[in-house]
Amino acid sequence: MKLWKKDIESSAKVEQFTVGRDLEFDIFLAPFDVQGSLAHTAMLESIGLLTAEEKEAIHTELKAIYRTMESGEFEMMEDVEDIHSQIEFMLTEKLGDVGKKIHSGRSRNDQVLVDLKLFMRSEVKEIVEGTKVLFDRMTALSEEYKSVLIPGYTHMQVAMPSSFGLWFGAYAEGLVDDLNALHSAYQMVNKNPLGSGAGFGSSFPLNRQLTTNLLGFEAMHHNVVYAMMSRGKAEKQLASGMASIAATLGKFSMDVCLYMGQDFGFLTFPDELTTGSSIMPHKKNPDVFELIRGKCNRIVALPNDIAMLTANLPVGYHREMQLLKELLFPALEDLKACLEMAEYMLQHIKINASKIDQDKYNYLFTVEEVNRQVLSGVPFREAYIQVGKDVNAGEFKADRKVNHNHEGSIGNLMTDAIRASMDRQLNSFNFDYWEKRIEKLVN
Amino acid sequence: MKLWKKDIESSAKVEQFTVGRDLEFDIFLAPFDVQGSLAHTAMLESIGLLTAEEKEAIHTELKAIYRTMESGEFEMMEDVEDIHSQIEFMLTEKLGDVGKKIHSGRSRNDQVLVDLKLFMRSEVKEIVEGTKVLFDRMTALSEEYKSVLIPGYTHMQVAMPSSFGLWFGAYAEGLVDDLNALHSAYQMVNKNPLGSGAGFGSSFPLNRQLTTNLLGFEAMHHNVVYAMMSRGKAEKQLASGMASIAATLGKFSMDVCLYMGQDFGFLTFPDELTTGSSIMPHKKNPDVFELIRGKCNRIVALPNDIAMLTANLPVGYHREMQLLKELLFPALEDLKACLEMAEYMLQHIKINASKIDQDKYNYLFTVEEVNRQVLSGVPFREAYIQVGKDVNAGEFKADRKVNHNHEGSIGNLMTDAIRASMDRQLNSFNFDYWEKRIEKLVN
Amino acid sequence: MKLWKKDIESSAKVEQFTVGRDLEFDIFLAPFDVQGSLAHTAMLESIGLLTAEEKEAIHTELKAIYRTMESGEFEMMEDVEDIHSQIEFMLTEKLGDVGKKIHSGRSRNDQVLVDLKLFMRSEVKEIVEGTKVLFDRMTALSEEYKSVLIPGYTHMQVAMPSSFGLWFGAYAEGLVDDLNALHSAYQMVNKNPLGSGAGFGSSFPLNRQLTTNLLGFEAMHHNVVYAMMSRGKAEKQLASGMASIAATLGKFSMDVCLYMGQDFGFLTFPDELTTGSSIMPHKKNPDVFELIRGKCNRIVALPNDIAMLTANLPVGYHREMQLLKELLFPALEDLKACLEMAEYMLQHIKINASKIDQDKYNYLFTVEEVNRQVLSGVPFREAYIQVGKDVNAGEFKADRKVNHNHEGSIGNLMTDAIRASMDRQLNSFNFDYWEKRIEKLVN
Amino acid sequence: MKLWKKDIESSAKVEQFTVGRDLEFDIFLAPFDVQGSLAHTAMLESIGLLTAEEKEAIHTELKAIYRTMESGEFEMMEDVEDIHSQIEFMLTEKLGDVGKKIHSGRSRNDQVLVDLKLFMRSEVKEIVEGTKVLFDRMTALSEEYKSVLIPGYTHMQVAMPSSFGLWFGAYAEGLVDDLNALHSAYQMVNKNPLGSGAGFGSSFPLNRQLTTNLLGFEAMHHNVVYAMMSRGKAEKQLASGMASIAATLGKFSMDVCLYMGQDFGFLTFPDELTTGSSIMPHKKNPDVFELIRGKCNRIVALPNDIAMLTANLPVGYHREMQLLKELLFPALEDLKACLEMAEYMLQHIKINASKIDQDKYNYLFTVEEVNRQVLSGVPFREAYIQVGKDVNAGEFKADRKVNHNHEGSIGNLMTDAIRASMDRQLNSFNFDYWEKRIEKLVN
Repeated sequence: MKLWKKDIESSAKVEQFTVGRDLEFDIFLAPFDVQGSLAHTAMLESIGLLTAEEKEAIHTELKAIYRTMESGEFEMMEDVEDIHSQIEFMLTEKLGDVGKKIHSGRSRNDQVLVDLKLFMRSEVKEIVEGTKVLFDRMTALSEEYKSVLIPGYTHMQVAMPSSFGLWFGAYAEGLVDDLNALHSAYQMVNKNPLGSGAGFGSSFPLNRQLTTNLLGFEAMHHNVVYAMMSRGKAEKQLASGMASIAATLGKFSMDVCLYMGQDFGFLTFPDELTTGSSIMPHKKNPDVFELIRGKCNRIVALPNDIAMLTANLPVGYHREMQLLKELLFPALEDLKACLEMAEYMLQHIKINASKIDQDKYNYLFTVEEVNRQVLSGVPFREAYIQVGKDVNAGEFKADRKVNHNHEGSIGNLMTDAIRASMDRQLNSFNFDYWEKRIEKLVN
Repeated sequence: MKLWKKDIESSAKVEQFTVGRDLEFDIFLAPFDVQGSLAHTAMLESIGLLTAEEKEAIHTELKAIYRTMESGEFEMMEDVEDIHSQIEFMLTEKLGDVGKKIHSGRSRNDQVLVDLKLFMRSEVKEIVEGTKVLFDRMTALSEEYKSVLIPGYTHMQVAMPSSFGLWFGAYAEGLVDDLNALHSAYQMVNKNPLGSGAGFGSSFPLNRQLTTNLLGFEAMHHNVVYAMMSRGKAEKQLASGMASIAATLGKFSMDVCLYMGQDFGFLTFPDELTTGSSIMPHKKNPDVFELIRGKCNRIVALPNDIAMLTANLPVGYHREMQLLKELLFPALEDLKACLEMAEYMLQHIKINASKIDQDKYNYLFTVEEVNRQVLSGVPFREAYIQVGKDVNAGEFKADRKVNHNHEGSIGNLMTDAIRASMDRQLNSFNFDYWEKRIEKLVN
Repeated sequence: MKLWKKDIESSAKVEQFTVGRDLEFDIFLAPFDVQGSLAHTAMLESIGLLTAEEKEAIHTELKAIYRTMESGEFEMMEDVEDIHSQIEFMLTEKLGDVGKKIHSGRSRNDQVLVDLKLFMRSEVKEIVEGTKVLFDRMTALSEEYKSVLIPGYTHMQVAMPSSFGLWFGAYAEGLVDDLNALHSAYQMVNKNPLGSGAGFGSSFPLNRQLTTNLLGFEAMHHNVVYAMMSRGKAEKQLASGMASIAATLGKFSMDVCLYMGQDFGFLTFPDELTTGSSIMPHKKNPDVFELIRGKCNRIVALPNDIAMLTANLPVGYHREMQLLKELLFPALEDLKACLEMAEYMLQHIKINASKIDQDKYNYLFTVEEVNRQVLSGVPFREAYIQVGKDVNAGEFKADRKVNHNHEGSIGNLMTDAIRASMDRQLNSFNFDYWEKRIEKLVN
Repeated sequence: MKLWKKDIESSAKVEQFTVGRDLEFDIFLAPFDVQGSLAHTAMLESIGLLTAEEKEAIHTELKAIYRTMESGEFEMMEDVEDIHSQIEFMLTEKLGDVGKKIHSGRSRNDQVLVDLKLFMRSEVKEIVEGTKVLFDRMTALSEEYKSVLIPGYTHMQVAMPSSFGLWFGAYAEGLVDDLNALHSAYQMVNKNPLGSGAGFGSSFPLNRQLTTNLLGFEAMHHNVVYAMMSRGKAEKQLASGMASIAATLGKFSMDVCLYMGQDFGFLTFPDELTTGSSIMPHKKNPDVFELIRGKCNRIVALPNDIAMLTANLPVGYHREMQLLKELLFPALEDLKACLEMAEYMLQHIKINASKIDQDKYNYLFTVEEVNRQVLSGVPFREAYIQVGKDVNAGEFKADRKVNHNHEGSIGNLMTDAIRASMDRQLNSFNFDYWEKRIEKLVN
């Protein structure tokens, strides 16, 4: 069943090594392979390489296969080299030689490329959606706890008053920029490589704009050598966008783990969401956030993994590009799970509102006092010296009321502005456009 | 001259270690520090923390300092802690206590943050411009050599006909996507952190929208904790954009080095641009492209370096963020130099047009022949078998004419479309907007 | 079946996320978990925490379980949290409460630690063995082809005469140094963490030297906090050793892929070990070496992945350390497979001995000619000028005989010395010592 | 003054780009270049390529130059390409044509290689010494504070009793393993590449064993191609050893920064070693440890930087290998400074012995109580249930006395054993051997 098979059988040892874990990941590409083939064959008909009848027959079968995928019935066969072979095999079983014609004007290279682009485009959509749900939770918590103060730390030292409102809001705003990073990956995966063949085009009069339209791509990769060159590059760009979200989520998890410790004690979670010990009732291990932190740090390292895999490879396809799948695919699953789990945990977070009242946090409010005096007319230097004296004499009394009202401060979180920037970011992803095109193609 | 100085002098040993290479890089930030201070003091006047006279006096001095920077006369003093201290010192020398007031409502943290943002924004502009010059060179070469064929390789094996037109064009198109990656960094560095203080805002009634406007930022970082959190994150995003360009340039350099070797021999450069040996006249070492490859691979590793430096740091400022400068600043210099040198070398590239005529490249044209027969009506399988037989019998005759005419192939490079996408990309950077604002601010 | 279970059930969602892919990898640890428990319970008896009868009963059962592992019958149960729980469960089913006693004086932390150490120690042995087989093949090829010249390249330019003897021999010698790097990992994984509990020891009078002896460890990690700290550190050290081998193997694969291309053509492999095309008979894709190169580059990135996962974590166990398994374990499988496949391919390598005769390689021999004249008394400068003139006049005639006879050069490969240094390196791994101890423990 | 100069001058632009920061780092190599030349010329005399008089004259001059280096008088000239050119130039100025003869049988490649090996060997020595001083400080502190308890954390949750004795001791023991990692780098840099020429040997009858002996190398790199291949590989191995120390030091710094925060408060430093604020007297920023953490994390990323720079480069010298110097050399300076500063800070550390008495740490001692009952005969399960009940009823009373006496626990730190393993490690570096040889060579 190997399509490039030669007379002489290659040794099973070689085959096992070269196939590797490919089949494990090919199932993710299955529906996208059908989408690509539907568009390609529609195009072949338009340039006369398939008759209308042949195209109709092929489309009918491909759509039937697609439905088995949508319903979850589709399964990988045992003995195939990859998903592409399997679909061609299924087609040929039904249609005979006509089935083989879907390979005209296409090589395995641009077929895989277009599958990957369609897959990654779809994954971006899922990540964006997961990020939005978490963002909504964080902005809601930011508003809910806007009046609960916590210490703000610099150098890990208690420094200035902060609040849960600021803390949740900061990570929410971070997610907006992360989606911006992801957007540049989106623009790269939303381009059509189909028609680039093995990276050098073809002598068939392919109509690449047509497949671009049918698959709802924003544009095509124009240059066919560049289309091939986008292998690895698109994955790295996507990994960078993922790493941006992961870095935000990982940092947040570090904060959570610290703040859950007995020495801070700012927040906790219900027993059933932590692990513990019956004789150490105070101990609640934040396993979920530790694992989010860990999984996110793995994703932070992903762009480097991809860079190392592809470093200094000259132009053209190289077989190890196949390994990109085993780098990228599990990371996508991990990131989506982390987004979901973080949001799930935050549904149940318990805030300890009174921790700020401890004496050790008195000095948080010294700068407040200096500024208060300055605003009431005392020169800065005098106010500063006076407060310093009070502090050193042990006579400083903290007025725990903070009057931070400028844009983005404790008293003015600008949640609406942050939400508006998220909405603008979301609108920049035109998922609707291609979803409608794909819908039309497969039905 | 240390601004945070305590009664007890900290040991010189500690000071030397903590200052590190900071001063070396601070000179890059000098003009941006003045820009930030001009905007900040204009804002202080607007909220009544400076009188009109005080603000005027400060602006007059700051603008004078700025002009020394533009004219290249400005120098770092020996005994200062950093650039910010020096400018405050110069101001205070002239204006007395009024000079000290520029620090009201601002901490060293948001001062450095805004300097870095303004600096990085300006660097993005220079990188974009350097990339555009290289892009123009590459598209011009793509057009100039569009009819010169070279082998196309897959698996480093001679596979299909390609051309210098395709080769140069591919890298040109790659640069467009790289600028897209850089654009997402641009949006992140084009946001105003001023007013975030040490990361927790202030009780002064700061007007952050005003400084945003004065400095020509696209928007502000709303949440003050997030503004602080953007330290390291903005640098990493910029590094990712730089890494994208670097990866393209590095891969191109690998191709050049290979193609200059005697075994390929597709291209070369004049003697004065290579190094060689008088007794090995064939040998021309492509040192420039080897060093571009190396410097670019360093930049490819830069996002990981930044990620490692900032990994698992909880929210808030940490002193090692200062080290981001020594990671980022030399890399910016390197990238700009690589762009410039690559373009300079390409001005003088010599193409060997006849290499494709060698017999070893005959088999490049077998697929052409099969397709030619298919298009003239022979079933694919028959054509394939016949050409295979000819080849095995040693009777295959390569017709070296290729008829690739679809979009993006040898005969249809779509250079205009690639140029148009570059223009769209360039327009997405609105450098004009802030350049005018800054112009107004400093004059 | 969760051993830390509380009254309140933790949600299934949390459990699924936290267990992750753990069970998939636990099967690798199974026999080592039994080894650890055998040693631990023998020690418990020695300090009076188990009676002789209890220990006997436990040992009998553990040895029976061990035999099912050796025979391949052992299977992971569906419903267990991890391998450790399963073995305790199996023991308790047979022995009742006595089975539970194996957990006295041990926490899950040091239990997992000792399993990992024993597992990694065993993996090091397999890697060393695989490396030795490849080394033997390479030294044999170095001797076999010692008189076949190839160009030596600097800057990817044809520079000086080299040989297949030198080329194979260089990589062989590289593997010796790689094993040295692995040896430092070996010393780290060959230390006993048992008795460190959760990282803070125990109030039981444990005899850690006894378990150290029983398990054949070279020494114990003395400090219990350090024993815990070795989690992640040992994995990183091992990854560094693996990366050293991988870098050698990956570089070798790059050479092979280049040399197999039509432009070099120095070597090839039989059809059944490559993939190709019937109409491009010259084309033989070196998929195996491309995949070795790719898999090895993944391993080269592994130390960085581990560093990122553990960066800036303060002292003590953190849950994400569990993820180290999914980083390390597949990489171990990959490295062993790469070693094996490289050696398998080299069994069948075909050397093209005559490539050096091509005219383009003439200038390889200019330096030879200069040196020849110098040795016969001509001053260097004169000889150099004369040869340069001949070359420029097109009159240089290459005498393709090389007279390199000093240590390590073409005519004196020092294969015996390289083999002797490999033998010394191999002897530094005292696998015998612990193999005998383990043998005694499990029988 | 360029030694490879051709008739046609290469453009200044190219020269500036290719020289880069090389001269900045060459000063580090200066004395080692002289050492290498002394050995090389002694060898040339032994094989008749220099007369006894010529060798004497050269040695006299080289030793004179060496003394200017030792005394600190030596300076790089303005107009030279590199350190090697300068020394040859100085020699030729004094000796005329005889000075040029030192280049016989040597290429710039193996000259640089041997300089780097000698330099790195010397750097290893300095790092080992710096590490030993820090180790001594840590073991002394471990003993000094062995009875001061602190909480032991797992999952960043208060878990079990630990102590400053354990904490300092753990990092001390870690340094022993780190030196083991460094030792494998040492063995790699302590091998002689001289005589490998440009990587392909020479037709001169070089005596490589002689230079190996004269320079005190442990052995030679036998195969000349491998000698060249060690460029980058030796640097990476050294970087891995450095990264191992850096990871230990960075983790320790993270602990220090956390423990200095107001929420833990376990330790602090005198005012003059921290930075602070007069109105926040509690605030002492641990800048030194933050910068150690940051610099160490940069070093942790160094092996990856080197791997990326050299990834997928085929066999033979490539010009970007020159960039290894700017990666490695500053990192060496940083690591030595971090070791020194950490030790300096620890000279002045202040331990807060009473923090453990806070109520929030009561539950640390529950496991102690369970074990105490078990040892006095109560079945584990009963003891566990009883303590759990007491805890839940709020009746648990912590007896803060811990009885951990087994090897490596609070009451038995095994400092002597840890020191003995450090001594064994130190003895494995035979610095004396080559120091004596070098002493003899240069005097």
